[in-house]
Amino acid sequence: MKLSTLACLVSGAFASFASADAVPWERLSQNDSVLLILDLQVGLYQLARDFDPTLYHNNMIAHAALGQLFDIPVVMTTSAQQGPNGPLPGIITDMYPDAPLIQRQGEVNAWDNAEFREAIRATGKKQVIVAGITTDVCTAFLALSLRAEGYSVWANVEASGTTTGLIRDTANARMQAAGVQLVSLFSIVCDLMRDWRSPPGAAAVIPWLDRYFPVYGELARGHGAAVLNGTIIPGEDVLVEGM
Amino acid sequence: MKLSTLACLVSGAFASFASADAVPWERLSQNDSVLLILDLQVGLYQLARDFDPTLYHNNMIAHAALGQLFDIPVVMTTSAQQGPNGPLPGIITDMYPDAPLIQRQGEVNAWDNAEFREAIRATGKKQVIVAGITTDVCTAFLALSLRAEGYSVWANVEASGTTTGLIRDTANARMQAAGVQLVSLFSIVCDLMRDWRSPPGAAAVIPWLDRYFPVYGELARGHGAAVLNGTIIPGEDVLVEGM
Amino acid sequence: MKLSTLACLVSGAFASFASADAVPWERLSQNDSVLLILDLQVGLYQLARDFDPTLYHNNMIAHAALGQLFDIPVVMTTSAQQGPNGPLPGIITDMYPDAPLIQRQGEVNAWDNAEFREAIRATGKKQVIVAGITTDVCTAFLALSLRAEGYSVWANVEASGTTTGLIRDTANARMQAAGVQLVSLFSIVCDLMRDWRSPPGAAAVIPWLDRYFPVYGELARGHGAAVLNGTIIPGEDVLVEGM
Amino acid sequence: MKLSTLACLVSGAFASFASADAVPWERLSQNDSVLLILDLQVGLYQLARDFDPTLYHNNMIAHAALGQLFDIPVVMTTSAQQGPNGPLPGIITDMYPDAPLIQRQGEVNAWDNAEFREAIRATGKKQVIVAGITTDVCTAFLALSLRAEGYSVWANVEASGTTTGLIRDTANARMQAAGVQLVSLFSIVCDLMRDWRSPPGAAAVIPWLDRYFPVYGELARGHGAAVLNGTIIPGEDVLVEGM
Amino acid sequence: MKLSTLACLVSGAFASFASADAVPWERLSQNDSVLLILDLQVGLYQLARDFDPTLYHNNMIAHAALGQLFDIPVVMTTSAQQGPNGPLPGIITDMYPDAPLIQRQGEVNAWDNAEFREAIRATGKKQVIVAGITTDVCTAFLALSLRAEGYSVWANVEASGTTTGLIRDTANARMQAAGVQLVSLFSIVCDLMRDWRSPPGAAAVIPWLDRYFPVYGELARGHGAAVLNGTIIPGEDVLVEGM
Amino acid sequence: MKLSTLACLVSGAFASFASADAVPWERLSQNDSVLLILDLQVGLYQLARDFDPTLYHNNMIAHAALGQLFDIPVVMTTSAQQGPNGPLPGIITDMYPDAPLIQRQGEVNAWDNAEFREAIRATGKKQVIVAGITTDVCTAFLALSLRAEGYSVWANVEASGTTTGLIRDTANARMQAAGVQLVSLFSIVCDLMRDWRSPPGAAAVIPWLDRYFPVYGELARGHGAAVLNGTIIPGEDVLVEGM
Amino acid sequence: MKLSTLACLVSGAFASFASADAVPWERLSQNDSVLLILDLQVGLYQLARDFDPTLYHNNMIAHAALGQLFDIPVVMTTSAQQGPNGPLPGIITDMYPDAPLIQRQGEVNAWDNAEFREAIRATGKKQVIVAGITTDVCTAFLALSLRAEGYSVWANVEASGTTTGLIRDTANARMQAAGVQLVSLFSIVCDLMRDWRSPPGAAAVIPWLDRYFPVYGELARGHGAAVLNGTIIPGEDVLVEGM
Amino acid sequence: MKLSTLACLVSGAFASFASADAVPWERLSQNDSVLLILDLQVGLYQLARDFDPTLYHNNMIAHAALGQLFDIPVVMTTSAQQGPNGPLPGIITDMYPDAPLIQRQGEVNAWDNAEFREAIRATGKKQVIVAGITTDVCTAFLALSLRAEGYSVWANVEASGTTTGLIRDTANARMQAAGVQLVSLFSIVCDLMRDWRSPPGAAAVIPWLDRYFPVYGELARGHGAAVLNGTIIPGEDVLVEGM
Repeated sequence: MKLSTLACLVSGAFASFASADAVPWERLSQNDSVLLILDLQVGLYQLARDFDPTLYHNNMIAHAALGQLFDIPVVMTTSAQQGPNGPLPGIITDMYPDAPLIQRQGEVNAWDNAEFREAIRATGKKQVIVAGITTDVCTAFLALSLRAEGYSVWANVEASGTTTGLIRDTANARMQAAGVQLVSLFSIVCDLMRDWRSPPGAAAVIPWLDRYFPVYGELARGHGAAVLNGTIIPGEDVLVEGM
Repeated sequence: MKLSTLACLVSGAFASFASADAVPWERLSQNDSVLLILDLQVGLYQLARDFDPTLYHNNMIAHAALGQLFDIPVVMTTSAQQGPNGPLPGIITDMYPDAPLIQRQGEVNAWDNAEFREAIRATGKKQVIVAGITTDVCTAFLALSLRAEGYSVWANVEASGTTTGLIRDTANARMQAAGVQLVSLFSIVCDLMRDWRSPPGAAAVIPWLDRYFPVYGELARGHGAAVLNGTIIPGEDVLVEGM
Repeated sequence: MKLSTLACLVSGAFASFASADAVPWERLSQNDSVLLILDLQVGLYQLARDFDPTLYHNNMIAHAALGQLFDIPVVMTTSAQQGPNGPLPGIITDMYPDAPLIQRQGEVNAWDNAEFREAIRATGKKQVIVAGITTDVCTAFLALSLRAEGYSVWANVEASGTTTGLIRDTANARMQAAGVQLVSLFSIVCDLMRDWRSPPGAAAVIPWLDRYFPVYGELARGHGAAVLNGTIIPGEDVLVEGM
Repeated sequence: MKLSTLACLVSGAFASFASADAVPWERLSQNDSVLLILDLQVGLYQLARDFDPTLYHNNMIAHAALGQLFDIPVVMTTSAQQGPNGPLPGIITDMYPDAPLIQRQGEVNAWDNAEFREAIRATGKKQVIVAGITTDVCTAFLALSLRAEGYSVWANVEASGTTTGLIRDTANARMQAAGVQLVSLFSIVCDLMRDWRSPPGAAAVIPWLDRYFPVYGELARGHGAAVLNGTIIPGEDVLVEGM
Repeated sequence: MKLSTLACLVSGAFASFASADAVPWERLSQNDSVLLILDLQVGLYQLARDFDPTLYHNNMIAHAALGQLFDIPVVMTTSAQQGPNGPLPGIITDMYPDAPLIQRQGEVNAWDNAEFREAIRATGKKQVIVAGITTDVCTAFLALSLRAEGYSVWANVEASGTTTGLIRDTANARMQAAGVQLVSLFSIVCDLMRDWRSPPGAAAVIPWLDRYFPVYGELARGHGAAVLNGTIIPGEDVLVEGM
Repeated sequence: MKLSTLACLVSGAFASFASADAVPWERLSQNDSVLLILDLQVGLYQLARDFDPTLYHNNMIAHAALGQLFDIPVVMTTSAQQGPNGPLPGIITDMYPDAPLIQRQGEVNAWDNAEFREAIRATGKKQVIVAGITTDVCTAFLALSLRAEGYSVWANVEASGTTTGLIRDTANARMQAAGVQLVSLFSIVCDLMRDWRSPPGAAAVIPWLDRYFPVYGELARGHGAAVLNGTIIPGEDVLVEGM
Repeated sequence: MKLSTLACLVSGAFASFASADAVPWERLSQNDSVLLILDLQVGLYQLARDFDPTLYHNNMIAHAALGQLFDIPVVMTTSAQQGPNGPLPGIITDMYPDAPLIQRQGEVNAWDNAEFREAIRATGKKQVIVAGITTDVCTAFLALSLRAEGYSVWANVEASGTTTGLIRDTANARMQAAGVQLVSLFSIVCDLMRDWRSPPGAAAVIPWLDRYFPVYGELARGHGAAVLNGTIIPGEDVLVEGM
Repeated sequence: MKLSTLACLVSGAFASFASADAVPWERLSQNDSVLLILDLQVGLYQLARDFDPTLYHNNMIAHAALGQLFDIPVVMTTSAQQGPNGPLPGIITDMYPDAPLIQRQGEVNAWDNAEFREAIRATGKKQVIVAGITTDVCTAFLALSLRAEGYSVWANVEASGTTTGLIRDTANARMQAAGVQLVSLFSIVCDLMRDWRSPPGAAAVIPWLDRYFPVYGELARGHGAAVLNGTIIPGEDVLVEGM
């Protein structure tokens, strides 16, 4: 190899780097992902004030249910659950009776707990989908640690909660600056599904959306009712004639 | 009639008054209403900052179009239109080539202008639907004057505009405290229509909604498409089976 | 009776009126109330944009479920349900297979429909709890008509929906000015229940809250876990020693 | 008395009534007021989501401290405090070791509890200052009951909390429509104090503001520092020369 | 007069009352109004947090300048101005070297100060335009007292300030419930002016608006520039051809 | 080549890199751009809740109309359009009867569809302007894929819609982190036009703005009216004399 | 130079690069900066809807006044000023009678105009401070072009305006991603001043702040008044004794 | 070392760099951090308008108290404290009687002051935790300078304040683009603590949270009360049986 080649390589690298993306596109794969349920505990739930409490409750259960829908491994962990933070809701633990649930007794950052690290590694997956309470502490510390370890991380921004909108936005921006993909619940579902015709397929996904993302559920319900029993009403005929 | 009867009447009246409503229900009638287009001028439009400017533009044109849809008399007026306030948009004046357009040369409150008062009276209507710029000046002053004259007034809160949300809310509250009915565009349409089967009927109203209230237009379009060509997709069947 | 007595009565009445409340306190009674499910249709649901769509969905189902929880009569009605508005969600109609469901074919205001009026009257109740889509049309027109007929009306502000927050606030204020009581879901529950020890009692109400008002459900879950398995952690002892 | 006099009286009364105020001005009196601490319990605190949780915590403690500052009687009550609602914070109960604390075992509306009613009546006061959790249930039900009983009521809008801003605003409007005075913490302080020179006087009020209303505390601190050690800096001289 | 006439009158009065307005329309008159500058002090200014501080500063100076524009009497007052509240800004006191400036030494409510009451009465006016800091204390207490004394009151909602938006809205609603007219700066100007052709006339009002309400000033400036030097650009011709 | 040159190159490269921009400036070119209309379907439209529904409707039609205005190639695609997502609105398909419309039967990410990829490649353009529903799924997945393929991408942030503002902001930030240019409708128009004197020129652009960006349309209309018929009013002369 | 040194340099460079900042700190220098007044025209002003119009007016004049305060060169430019965009306000052009004012006849991006480019280059400055209307078009296009040309750019986020907050935020983020420094008015003043004791010094800066940033002006005025005439009031003494 | 090795290193470095994070994860260490209290002065406090003033006051005191809680060195500085900016609150200076307090007489950027630089260097720490008023000037200038000097910087976004939310967000984004870690108060506490069982431990941290982060304090208090005296209420048993 010659020096000129090296020089070329170097400037070529720069050239391509200059146009490279800071956080490049990466797809979630059903085969290479693991779902983390991180400190979504009944006591800590009261600290999640950046969402309406009813809405946030829906979102954290929906996050947990992603593992069942796509049949991907799940790892659960809690922080000091005999204390004020409380246990995970039974509706979540009931979903995964065989998944590991690591009860941390003091470590804030789950990655500091050897049992937890081992549970993650045991899945053999490199794509981690995570939500936790609070966003700025539990989610951010773990997501940043995972990035430092070389994992790809998808933070479900709708299922992590914290005390204020400012803190939420700041914590999310901090994770993004460290290469974390910030994603919605619906985008995780669609990214894992990829095609409405592939397993688990629309027949499984639509009922799931109906429960946790009802804006789509009602759209489908309205459509189905129209196909089965709907009649064109006066005025409507004009709207659809050109379609 | 005896005094005791009177006393009874009086206290009965009081009793019923005590439970009477401050601003009682009154229905809009196609036969007894007049539409006012008040200072919706192209210059003054720039002062309407309490709505997105594109949205507000839609709303003020939609307000103007109510006269055509329901075939009710229209009165237009402008304030100093050769000056910065500018004329009404051509799209509005083109709708009503035969309606009175009173060009006020100085009066802020349209009711101070004799020609305008006469135009209102000439319609013989007692229910006035109004929108103007600005809400706190043009709309409020006229609406309050009309109330003082015994008219029933419906203020279209979506088609009056002013500089800030605080001023909008304050002006609306002031009008309501004087007995003005604060209403949306959609509620005016539905109140005047009363029944989808009566004239002008759905065949006229739905295309109007499609243009000015597209959330309903697209709902109808989606429904029509489903009836004509839609197919039940997997998963959707579960949702509709119980309906 | 003497005139002076009358005069006294009159001015006394005025005096007491001057300090009377515009919308006086009235309690909901399990024995005298009826629940209205008004046009909460799967198509119209898409027009309810003043709430997060997931949150609003929870609220409208929770509203419907009040009839079951308190065993009060329910009346359902829909507007042109074969058209774009769509049917009621099956989850709602399944709750009340024996309750009247009046399918209006054109009347916007449910009170214009004789069958509906008869259904309300047949319940023999004078306190009406209502939620509908849209707030400014379906809910407001009916609530105002009911007030004019002498009914007491409780509008569930969380379970009616409309296109914008401004329209919601305006419609609610209009109802209040006509004597409608504007209430939250939680206040309806607590007003009907009155005492945690009376039927249906906490044993029925808490699971209901857990499903539809999870901020209380999780509070109870955290408390129960603490009583059963909780341990005082260091630092916490200081907080509770004075309690 | 003649009929014409009566007629005159009646129409005069109407005339004056027409300009009378719906909720007339009434001043708080240190001698005639009682402070209610209503269900400000450590569990229910988690339902107060319409304020930042740190800010709301300050406000509820500040509300409680009003009794000490102005030496007015205090009545405390809790709802099912052995359950999820929890006890009052020790910092509050420590303030008033001798004040009545009525532990309701089931009644939602404190006025339904005979012991509570008796405690209020025992104070002999007619002006009630109240804050509770939640605004729409505990505060509203009691405030409305008190109005119906003829009490004057001041609802501290900063120290009652509930789940959403919409519910807060709706509950406050409902109370106002029933004649409740909606007031801020600062306005309660200033209304009770009336004059900075009267007891308890500025020397007591300013330290209280410094703790609970620090925007004033820091203003005073900055002013004091300026008087003691401040120096006019260049540029500043121009600003103050005309004052 | 017969009893039946009286009965008629009474029920007629009721009938008309039932449709009477709670806060009826009243016009501001240049001849019968007085402008109050209430505690708009440089220290208290720091408590006005419900507006952007630059915007609020403009508004309070604009309020003060109304007296000059319309040549109406002005009364100024301050609260403990040697303390943290500070003096009025020199720009305000310079406007009215001959107007009374009552320095209250302790009274929170200006109406409690005899010298202030006398100053108001000395003007002989019955319409009071007021703005103060804070809205919930200084403005509200005085406005409510003035109402109780039979004055008509216009509260300039843009020139009173307080610590939060919630407190602002609550205080404004409280004043409205007591019959205070809640108005914007622009509506005060337009109400006092009535006609652009009457004194002080557009030639005085437009420069005032240019300074304090620049959205109108720039509209006028743009219009003037167009008249003087503007040229129709391609595309624009289409827009104006139908006007 | 010498090593010192290499060292120089390397550090020089670093130096220039250190000041290089992460997402550098790139101009849209009428000759090298293609417009994508991505899943702007009448059913999916109901999921676009981060804008007022009337405003968003305007924006999505305006996006579609860019192809006509600048005569650039258009590619349309839909997702499962016989199902709940529905077809494209007729107003859009009518604009481009000859453009490809790829009806995907299952692929969420349009780039997964070979026919779509081919349609893009067939245009031979490297600059892609895109808007879709939902922002976080349809727009983001495709935009990120296009970036990975080396395309330059302009995401029209006003014409993509999704369920919440948080999801919108997160999805936009994610696209930006991958090098997507986030742009407004107006900036796309101005970037493609470059000079008001070049084709299509102001004569075409202004009517287009008048329809879809009326804040500019009314500005032009007001200006045109002033040039044609405006008169300087008193007071206005002062404002313009120095200009 | 040895290879090992090079390797060291390279990896050292990488190491330091890995921790280098994307947009590194750069200070504004009075000697190397130029102020751009970009299309702040009286017509375009009406498009600046992301700020209160009075506040924005203050900000754009304050931006223009920075050149006078710090005696730095100013370049002005307008877009089609004989058309709807209108001229610059006279108050701005009067500030800089001798500065270049480039009237572009069609170029959207000022950098496309040779005369403008020359005017910038003629100043010999490398630090450009800019504000324009609209943020997403005029400001962004020019700022991005300047970055591409190697200039350092400070965008005054308070003095550029556009139609919506979303567009503002998006345009600002786009500029930041290209290395533009996003700054406030106050930070520009403080960065150029560096030390209150250096020219122009506090004696010039404070009166400027008093006019355009009155939150500081009133702070200084209150402080000055306290030093000159203030007295410690009871209660205040406690606050300051420890200071 | 061979050239090929170097080439490998270079391209490997590039490869790894391409996937490296822009702002990588770094943990706060009790042993290597210093706390800065930057211009949190009683006068400047009045400029912090992006938070509720009571909330912000809590946050700035809480920031100052971090030094005591974790026993880390503290450096304080003020800007022109004899002028309008005022001194630090006594509650802060009382916490650290022995810490350096550098009174800058003119330098805006604390890093321009040699005494301050020396004080930082004397601590020997490389991790700097900072909060100041204003965010865009004092905090940003210093944080950016520290970054340029190679320090790691944590900006406490809850304890810096400025005049508007826009300026806050812009300044924070600017700091993040320069590699500053934007963090909440709670995340600083948890990052420094790392494990609830390590010194200072839960016994010290929980009382601190109770004072400054009461949402957690009340959670702990409610939990403790439940453990000590709580009883399972009917309905609650169902919720916890599966946990």
